[in-house]
Amino acid sequence: MGISLVILAAGQGSRMQSDLPKVLHKLAACPLVVHAMRAGRALDPARVVVVVGHGAEAVAAVVADEDPQARIVTQTEQLGTAHAVGQARAALDGQGGDVVVLYGDTPFIRPETLEALQAARAAHDVVVLGFHAADPGRYGRLVAQGDRLERIVEFKDATEAERAITLCNSGVLCADRAVLFDLIAQVGNDNAAGEYYLTDVVGLARARGLSAGVVTCPEAETLGINTRAELAAAEAAFQAQARAEALENGVTLQAPDTVIFAQDTCLGRDCVIEPYVVFGPDVTVESGATIRAFSHLEGCHVSRGAVVGPYARLRPGAELAEDVRIGNFVEIKNAQLGEGAKVNHLSYVGDADVGAYANLGAGTVTCNYDGVFKHRTTIGEGAFIGSSTMLVAPVTVGAGALTGSGSVITRDVPEGALALGRADQTIKPGLGRKLMDRLRARKADQNKG
Amino acid sequence: MGISLVILAAGQGSRMQSDLPKVLHKLAACPLVVHAMRAGRALDPARVVVVVGHGAEAVAAVVADEDPQARIVTQTEQLGTAHAVGQARAALDGQGGDVVVLYGDTPFIRPETLEALQAARAAHDVVVLGFHAADPGRYGRLVAQGDRLERIVEFKDATEAERAITLCNSGVLCADRAVLFDLIAQVGNDNAAGEYYLTDVVGLARARGLSAGVVTCPEAETLGINTRAELAAAEAAFQAQARAEALENGVTLQAPDTVIFAQDTCLGRDCVIEPYVVFGPDVTVESGATIRAFSHLEGCHVSRGAVVGPYARLRPGAELAEDVRIGNFVEIKNAQLGEGAKVNHLSYVGDADVGAYANLGAGTVTCNYDGVFKHRTTIGEGAFIGSSTMLVAPVTVGAGALTGSGSVITRDVPEGALALGRADQTIKPGLGRKLMDRLRARKADQNKG
Amino acid sequence: MGISLVILAAGQGSRMQSDLPKVLHKLAACPLVVHAMRAGRALDPARVVVVVGHGAEAVAAVVADEDPQARIVTQTEQLGTAHAVGQARAALDGQGGDVVVLYGDTPFIRPETLEALQAARAAHDVVVLGFHAADPGRYGRLVAQGDRLERIVEFKDATEAERAITLCNSGVLCADRAVLFDLIAQVGNDNAAGEYYLTDVVGLARARGLSAGVVTCPEAETLGINTRAELAAAEAAFQAQARAEALENGVTLQAPDTVIFAQDTCLGRDCVIEPYVVFGPDVTVESGATIRAFSHLEGCHVSRGAVVGPYARLRPGAELAEDVRIGNFVEIKNAQLGEGAKVNHLSYVGDADVGAYANLGAGTVTCNYDGVFKHRTTIGEGAFIGSSTMLVAPVTVGAGALTGSGSVITRDVPEGALALGRADQTIKPGLGRKLMDRLRARKADQNKG
Repeated sequence: MGISLVILAAGQGSRMQSDLPKVLHKLAACPLVVHAMRAGRALDPARVVVVVGHGAEAVAAVVADEDPQARIVTQTEQLGTAHAVGQARAALDGQGGDVVVLYGDTPFIRPETLEALQAARAAHDVVVLGFHAADPGRYGRLVAQGDRLERIVEFKDATEAERAITLCNSGVLCADRAVLFDLIAQVGNDNAAGEYYLTDVVGLARARGLSAGVVTCPEAETLGINTRAELAAAEAAFQAQARAEALENGVTLQAPDTVIFAQDTCLGRDCVIEPYVVFGPDVTVESGATIRAFSHLEGCHVSRGAVVGPYARLRPGAELAEDVRIGNFVEIKNAQLGEGAKVNHLSYVGDADVGAYANLGAGTVTCNYDGVFKHRTTIGEGAFIGSSTMLVAPVTVGAGALTGSGSVITRDVPEGALALGRADQTIKPGLGRKLMDRLRARKADQNKG
Repeated sequence: MGISLVILAAGQGSRMQSDLPKVLHKLAACPLVVHAMRAGRALDPARVVVVVGHGAEAVAAVVADEDPQARIVTQTEQLGTAHAVGQARAALDGQGGDVVVLYGDTPFIRPETLEALQAARAAHDVVVLGFHAADPGRYGRLVAQGDRLERIVEFKDATEAERAITLCNSGVLCADRAVLFDLIAQVGNDNAAGEYYLTDVVGLARARGLSAGVVTCPEAETLGINTRAELAAAEAAFQAQARAEALENGVTLQAPDTVIFAQDTCLGRDCVIEPYVVFGPDVTVESGATIRAFSHLEGCHVSRGAVVGPYARLRPGAELAEDVRIGNFVEIKNAQLGEGAKVNHLSYVGDADVGAYANLGAGTVTCNYDGVFKHRTTIGEGAFIGSSTMLVAPVTVGAGALTGSGSVITRDVPEGALALGRADQTIKPGLGRKLMDRLRARKADQNKG
Repeated sequence: MGISLVILAAGQGSRMQSDLPKVLHKLAACPLVVHAMRAGRALDPARVVVVVGHGAEAVAAVVADEDPQARIVTQTEQLGTAHAVGQARAALDGQGGDVVVLYGDTPFIRPETLEALQAARAAHDVVVLGFHAADPGRYGRLVAQGDRLERIVEFKDATEAERAITLCNSGVLCADRAVLFDLIAQVGNDNAAGEYYLTDVVGLARARGLSAGVVTCPEAETLGINTRAELAAAEAAFQAQARAEALENGVTLQAPDTVIFAQDTCLGRDCVIEPYVVFGPDVTVESGATIRAFSHLEGCHVSRGAVVGPYARLRPGAELAEDVRIGNFVEIKNAQLGEGAKVNHLSYVGDADVGAYANLGAGTVTCNYDGVFKHRTTIGEGAFIGSSTMLVAPVTVGAGALTGSGSVITRDVPEGALALGRADQTIKPGLGRKLMDRLRARKADQNKG
């Protein structure tokens, strides 16, 4: 009987000043809702339900991209958190076990916290995640005796004594599926906002004689995002943490504050990351590789001993074997480079397979797009591609073959062959100077005129 | 009867350790004196006079570039602020109304403050701008009763009680033109520095039975720049403010602290600015456009839905229509790109008109310079420019035309035509390997020898 | 009788989580051990001995690269600091004068401090460098009367009263060579760690009736590096200092915090460094030159009036004369550029001599590598290299010569000549459209199928 996750992701987030639904705003290059999904994955859930509303289609697409098994349910009217969770009922029909409710705008919950939350279900029917707030402000207060939760009091209903409580409600909770939906069915909306509040299930459970418990986590984990300034602060907190962890794990960072990590950046021990490097999603850099300054990496793998940059851009599908060298102003996309291959200057290598120890000269371009279709380029082991060679895909250059600088290669080049595609050089003595003199004379005339 | 501005910009700023006159040092990519001019513009002045001295010619050029109507007067000797304002007398001859005195090294005065200053003239003959200093130090003190200014006391002449006053003199003031110049004529230089101080006009006015008033603003507005460290601090303050405002206005900034704004950067709601973007002067990015990391923009317009970068450089005159795509290592200068046009890799497009949905391959170059003249390139709608095409301007490629990779296009290409300019590919079997083997053998010989 | 330096650089630095020996980790683009060597150079030492151990070969190579005269001695077992210094005995045989002991992981000692240390030898037989610690923690304490050092007490052996002392031991010391090695020979290892401690020489000296003295320096100078977090903090401290000094010296930095200095970066007054510039080792930028944003410089010289970048990469051996212009996406390596020469866009210039006022068009490549050897390109004064010219080295383009866009230049071009190497342009009316229509039709078929 696996656990189920319900992730609430229906809100608009009007304080974000954005047409983009709040949960699609990114933290560490990853949408907020995906952070929640990844946190929840720690529980190895049997089913994940994401409740969408504002921007439903866009949110659903991001959710499906992260987890094609996730069920999407739509809350068409935003009638409160209990109502939102209620939308997941049908999608969880027949599921046994517990339900954990998470929030699409709360990206920092740690796996350990969710595990503790679920573990506490052994002792309580409903378990709520609380935190001790430095400044409790208008948060709902948790009235508890030890790990036993008496009730949740909204700030505006709280007595002076209750307001002095610093243990606050994160909104995250865990309960048996059947119990939870029974309780939710009882929640009313007789309050100022006319909303159905999920927090009411605690009181309802207690009224039935069920027990409620509280598990606590650091306040930082419960941080919700409501404005762009809060998002920027959350991003800064994430980056500070990622940089400190990288240093602890033995990554060399000359200027840690200038390196931008993504949620899932994976860096090996003793890899060197120079200043001003930006990691997009899904990047692995193995031990002992070097990423030089001003490089930008997304969806790529850099193997041991490889040196990338400065000013290198690795796009999704770039797979660099050991000791590959990617130099400045070079873009690699959807391409595998074999051991020791080199692309040192001003090149575009897309949709390609490059053999080991091949050397691509400055200005090499894989012409992979004919205006409608994309085609693949294959370069054999040890091939030497002369500067400014245009490789008009689909095309293959055999192992050990050479192409002359400035050649346009439209037909396959056999192994070990030399391919040339250029006009002979002609020299017209004195004509350079004559042409220039004529232009300068014309300019002088204009200036006079 | 319009208002007149007098902006004092004659000082050298020797503490800047620079040959550049102080007022030409830049804050947010805009010379300090231009900040003062733009602040003053809030008053819709009938005449602007800038008093120059050190580096007069260079300052005058910058002033004229910002406002060709501005009058430049030269203070050949630096004899004090009253003397400096006095140089503007002739340039304001015949102007009715008030004069506001501003400073070329004081860039943060807000329009609202100047409006309040002028409004206070309804109640007083001379109005001085004051501020409550956190640490009054050696500033001149304003002895005032409410908004009524008794006198200005220099720090060194102040009594203990006067030194306890925190209301300080910013130097900015407003008075009727005729009254002001009359008072200035009376100012003496009988002081330690032998200078004519503008602040003395308050005492002289009071002695004549005129009334003086004070208007206050936050201390931050009156910040003057005297050293490079102060300039750096001012820049940091400007940037912090600009970043916060951008977030409030709904701009998406993953790492706000890494984005460098110019004084006049204009970003639409929901546009996305990735880390490490530098804005030079005169940039507008419309709602929903994206500027990717490591991009550098100056004097350009990016329309809705366009995506720029990473590593894109937009130079003055780059005009991108909706949904244009500018990719990495691409430079655009003085060029208009039609809707949906793409320049994705390693290209230079200068002095060009590019039609809608045209696609320029990697390594495209508009050869716009013949060594003396610049020429224009025109590319029609939907044209497809093969990789590494050299477009030798002046030249036109018609709508829907194609150019083959590696072609040098020196003559116009009609609509729908295919243009090629390349040698046929020749293949010499085995020769690549033979040439390489020979080189390697030579190297082996050298290593032996 | 010159002074001798002994630099201890044998430790592994296991807390660095690195396979690289600790002293080879870099601060300000310079290995820690080299910082120590450069600090010691202030004493104009007659002999420098570096004691290596972990990663001996790699450390020795870096030391030799910095100072080929330095003697390397190996400590095969790490038996303590006295043992380490003892390894230097033979290498200093016959040297008169004093020995100063420095540490390869302590990069901030200033020359003035070492001079004071040595000067104090006039009054004392052994002189120890101490510092007043803000938080003395577990440092060894210096029990002193004025500048007279009684003894050094290890923290664990210290009385309550001794622990209250804030004057702590840096480990740096100075003594007569013969005396020092005599004392070291007496040091025992009867302690918990079983190590021979250099600090014991003070007690041994005092027991012999020799005098010991203490010289103090700010705590910041004695900062040792033990973890990557400490290294990052040291780097931040170095950069903050370098930025402040640059501002004081009259360098223009719009965003000082974004400029990364190397240990030896040398910037002239009124040079302009835009945001996001990274300096590697051995860079000089003369007064009045401008380095634009996103540029990366190593081992190069930029003369007065030159403008570099944005996105320019200058590699070792780039020598730019006055008023040279290097533009975006341009890489210069081992090349001299004459006065006023221009390389404005997307070019690679390596192993080249470029004459004054030569103009290299966009996409110029010096094809300097044939797969085995590197060759040199020479471009004469005032030559005009058309866009995307491939200069297949070794090759010379004469003064005032022109090359046509897209030419591959394999043979020398005489002065004033025009060189072309390109096919004629052919135009096939309507064929562009026909080809595209065919591709689109095929795609439509696929989508149907």
